[in-house]
Amino acid sequence: MNRERIVRIGLLGFGTIGSSVYRLIQQEHGQILEGTGVDLQVAKILEIDPRKVPPDAPAGLFTTDFVEIVDDPSIAIVVEVIGGTEAAFDFLDAAMRKGKDVVTANKQLLATRGQALFTLAREERRHLRFEASVAGAIPIIKVMRESMIAAGLKTVYGIVNGTTNYILTRMHHEEGDYAEILAEAQRLGYAEADPTADVGGADAAAKMAILGSIAFHSRVTLADVSYTGIQDVTLEDVRYAKGLGFVVKLIGAARLIGNRVSVRVFPALVPQSHPLASIEGSNNAVFLQGDEIGEIMLMGPGAGGRPTATAVVSDIVSIANTKDVGFLQSCSCYRSLEFLPASEVESAFFIKMNVEDRAGVLAQIASVFGEYSVSVASMLQKGRGAEAELVLITHPTKEAGFFAAIEQVKGLSCCKSSPRTLRVL
Amino acid sequence: MNRERIVRIGLLGFGTIGSSVYRLIQQEHGQILEGTGVDLQVAKILEIDPRKVPPDAPAGLFTTDFVEIVDDPSIAIVVEVIGGTEAAFDFLDAAMRKGKDVVTANKQLLATRGQALFTLAREERRHLRFEASVAGAIPIIKVMRESMIAAGLKTVYGIVNGTTNYILTRMHHEEGDYAEILAEAQRLGYAEADPTADVGGADAAAKMAILGSIAFHSRVTLADVSYTGIQDVTLEDVRYAKGLGFVVKLIGAARLIGNRVSVRVFPALVPQSHPLASIEGSNNAVFLQGDEIGEIMLMGPGAGGRPTATAVVSDIVSIANTKDVGFLQSCSCYRSLEFLPASEVESAFFIKMNVEDRAGVLAQIASVFGEYSVSVASMLQKGRGAEAELVLITHPTKEAGFFAAIEQVKGLSCCKSSPRTLRVL
Repeated sequence: MNRERIVRIGLLGFGTIGSSVYRLIQQEHGQILEGTGVDLQVAKILEIDPRKVPPDAPAGLFTTDFVEIVDDPSIAIVVEVIGGTEAAFDFLDAAMRKGKDVVTANKQLLATRGQALFTLAREERRHLRFEASVAGAIPIIKVMRESMIAAGLKTVYGIVNGTTNYILTRMHHEEGDYAEILAEAQRLGYAEADPTADVGGADAAAKMAILGSIAFHSRVTLADVSYTGIQDVTLEDVRYAKGLGFVVKLIGAARLIGNRVSVRVFPALVPQSHPLASIEGSNNAVFLQGDEIGEIMLMGPGAGGRPTATAVVSDIVSIANTKDVGFLQSCSCYRSLEFLPASEVESAFFIKMNVEDRAGVLAQIASVFGEYSVSVASMLQKGRGAEAELVLITHPTKEAGFFAAIEQVKGLSCCKSSPRTLRVL
Repeated sequence: MNRERIVRIGLLGFGTIGSSVYRLIQQEHGQILEGTGVDLQVAKILEIDPRKVPPDAPAGLFTTDFVEIVDDPSIAIVVEVIGGTEAAFDFLDAAMRKGKDVVTANKQLLATRGQALFTLAREERRHLRFEASVAGAIPIIKVMRESMIAAGLKTVYGIVNGTTNYILTRMHHEEGDYAEILAEAQRLGYAEADPTADVGGADAAAKMAILGSIAFHSRVTLADVSYTGIQDVTLEDVRYAKGLGFVVKLIGAARLIGNRVSVRVFPALVPQSHPLASIEGSNNAVFLQGDEIGEIMLMGPGAGGRPTATAVVSDIVSIANTKDVGFLQSCSCYRSLEFLPASEVESAFFIKMNVEDRAGVLAQIASVFGEYSVSVASMLQKGRGAEAELVLITHPTKEAGFFAAIEQVKGLSCCKSSPRTLRVL
């Protein structure tokens, strides 16, 4: 039915993703050939760690020398799954200069040095695909680049880090402590030995830089994304949220406001009725809002060798089936928008504070909020006497004014502890 | 950045979708040109109803004669949004024979005469795209055809009819009667004056035929899909389901079992913890399960002029950017699998029956189920005396055996009414 075409691949890295890509190409070879006419062949695998090379590997398949791949004219596509930003950059750069198309799963590389790579891809008229860099098996890059072309995207909310979602889900259901659940997640393999990039929000920030760039056609780098992780989210926060009908999630938020872009990552209270509230465990989800489409959400496994490998293979097949130069070979950032300063971003907030239990306290606090135009959506007073607590949810308000109000509330004699604040989606 | 290319379109039909496509192409013209290098121009619109032609339409834009479109060599892409299966077929057939690529939103046409159209598209080396035919703005066709190429898809569950989901959602939340809510849905425009195709399941069946064909690479036509609608779903069913932790949904289920295909549509009890349970109102969702990906779900608006138009426009841009012949120009059905006979399909069931309230009744019923290897997962007895009701949920079981058991239970003297059965997801 299709004209068959041999496509030889050079695979860089044979870790969790690399070995899954190799296995998947072997396993699905016949189906891909029948369905698309592409005869995929892994020609060479670069792996410098001899312990990762299977003892029964075909002779000559593995190499420790990138030159054997980049100088092999029979190799059409180079797939980079080694991670890191130095060698990976050099490899992709060299491969494109030698006329090879490239596929990468490397979010850190794209979020920090993507501009240079995309520029080179355009100059060399090469494909640079990266579906696996965000949200594993969820085809969010293809959907945003190709299907949302006339969607008028305004907002991208993402749960794009599986580790933090796993921890927060368990805190919510089991009412367990952050540190304990993190330790168990590490034992079970849901969190790295050094979990900093995940729990600190940097991993999610890199992914949101990539999604923000595509959504608004203007380059967002990791340095443009302000992020806060979940290390300071307490069981008490989670319990309060639950009591009020919310779930605490680490949310990546990319927004186009007027003609300015804001991309941030923060823990937030998500209303239980919001589709993102139902994303549990290590799953990922991306929620898109646009003038023309209303709201669309994609959810699925955000990591893991096998799901991520399906994204890499779909990129390879997509390249192999597009011989001419279309818009997918160009960087999608055809314009350069300004960023919205943090002070101008609007958010709704959750506030919890210990207050004196006496007449007039509420009026005092309300008057400070009023001064800064912070409007209260709902309020709950809990406990009595020394235990009195005030919980408030505000309407969306300029963050600068909000934090100024909080500073002033802190100074009130009726306020017995520093107010705890979290954003509300 | 991109080489600009004029792409002239002939639009067939100026109803809800057609007028939205036209407006969207005008509105997003600049963005599409900058982002993809495609200069989209609507050259001609076929509309035979003069009342649908806007009084301020540019002279010469509208025509009542298809020949003006099909014989215009400057028109590269014909977009069919008139509906129906006779004229639409002839138009697409003629357009492809004249060397034009085609886009359609016509699920009935594809589900009944798709084979002939796809064969012609292959022979003529034309594109035939149909993203808008299923689930409106949700890009499920592209995701399944291009991203799930190595996913090992086994199951596709869809909520693909907005009208029925709207009715069932309201029955669930308001505990209102089917007939009353249908009448109100008609008043509000969520249901057609003649709602038969929606509430009877035929609309969902056509969409599941399309999704099943793509998922398993083997042609499924409307005639291959057995379907039951929601006309017989009672408020009592919905209440029982709710009490047991389920939501009643109209589910399209396409499954690959061994090497045989089963595609059906039926009302089912969906566990509240399942992602499909949270799909509310007129939204659509498609839940994919595959060996390599685990589970992925896409949700969003399933209908409406504006969301559906975004799918049509993304198809147009996709064609305009693919000049060579790749696998997307071929029918995805490269094999011909058998269908699983209804009797061999396995399902779990919900059963409710009025029974006599006396010792031994349970043993009698259990013994019949045992005979047919129907294993009970949970059981609930409600009421006493003349009001005694038995509610059971079975484990998945061969449907033939199940229905034979139910026939036999009907004949038992202790069974006071015909048992009510519904499938459980």
